[in-house]
Amino acid sequence: MTSARFESQIRFIVEADKLKEIFRQTLCTRSQRPENDAEHSWHLCLLAIVLAEHANVPGMDLGRVLRMLILHDLVEIDAGDTYAYDPARMADQHAREVLAADRIFGILPPDQALEFRAIWDEFEERRSPEARFAAAVDRFQPMLLGCENGGISWRRHGVTQDRVLARNAHIADGCAPLWDYAVRMIQRAVDAGHLGKGPG
Amino acid sequence: MTSARFESQIRFIVEADKLKEIFRQTLCTRSQRPENDAEHSWHLCLLAIVLAEHANVPGMDLGRVLRMLILHDLVEIDAGDTYAYDPARMADQHAREVLAADRIFGILPPDQALEFRAIWDEFEERRSPEARFAAAVDRFQPMLLGCENGGISWRRHGVTQDRVLARNAHIADGCAPLWDYAVRMIQRAVDAGHLGKGPG
Repeated sequence: MTSARFESQIRFIVEADKLKEIFRQTLCTRSQRPENDAEHSWHLCLLAIVLAEHANVPGMDLGRVLRMLILHDLVEIDAGDTYAYDPARMADQHAREVLAADRIFGILPPDQALEFRAIWDEFEERRSPEARFAAAVDRFQPMLLGCENGGISWRRHGVTQDRVLARNAHIADGCAPLWDYAVRMIQRAVDAGHLGKGPG
Repeated sequence: MTSARFESQIRFIVEADKLKEIFRQTLCTRSQRPENDAEHSWHLCLLAIVLAEHANVPGMDLGRVLRMLILHDLVEIDAGDTYAYDPARMADQHAREVLAADRIFGILPPDQALEFRAIWDEFEERRSPEARFAAAVDRFQPMLLGCENGGISWRRHGVTQDRVLARNAHIADGCAPLWDYAVRMIQRAVDAGHLGKGPG
């Protein structure tokens, strides 16, 4: 270990602190303030360890899932949060995030920058059972908090059931029982008048 | 998988959302608002994956470290955050947290409640290389943010260098190079006038 290596790692850790100031459309259940990306990432890790037994590939590497979830939103320090139901912002999302990944992972020592970037690429491309399970909890968690909050954020943006189901169907690719649960949960939100049926 | 099992797991995940409202004395670097336990837990996970190569036992199970860090502060939903330099509150901290662990992990299916409780106990008792490394990053991160913020929180509470060093010396038990770094970092904060020398 050289001192320069350690210094690069500490600079990356300090830079990552900014993720606590990137706010999402999802609301926290107790205060109903917007959730930020850092606490969102923690919550996804919690979902992953609780629900891992239901993954489509139970022998997957949970440690790798957790590393993906810890790193997956860091690019939003530069690229900002892109609301899942905003097609205009979604169009150039990937290009903005790739630039951010170059800069942010580039703070690390070169070997670690490559390693972390590979984990982020794997998540983005959903090309492994671990990435598909990580993507499943990343999509489910905002739906869960949306239902817990009575659909405030969906109604604010005119989002309806058909769009929620179309957007999140790939949950089934990583965790089929979670998708079954989500479809029933969303139907209860529609029945309760918290989410419109659509088409929106 | 029974539906009752899934429901218990989802209730635990929703209960855990309250961790986002438990605020600490540490300040975030960009906004200087108090950090909450959920984003703190995420930041510790990030430190762990960046710094794992420096752990005293490099062959440790990083996945287990991450599970400890994800779960370790959940008890503060009931017990509140206990400031590390508040002896009055520290006295009954463990008793308050054990009650909280009983209630909060008890929301899970019984086998999972036992498993998660064992992970929390292992962290609290620092009885494995994984627990000692997890404890090391848990102690280092507030010192790092304290230095980045020019020591505002330490001065607010009259905390001095001697107390910071005494409180956090067990970082060396989990990650000796991190403790060496921390001692130099704290000395720079003293030299810059951000932290008093003490005895406080």
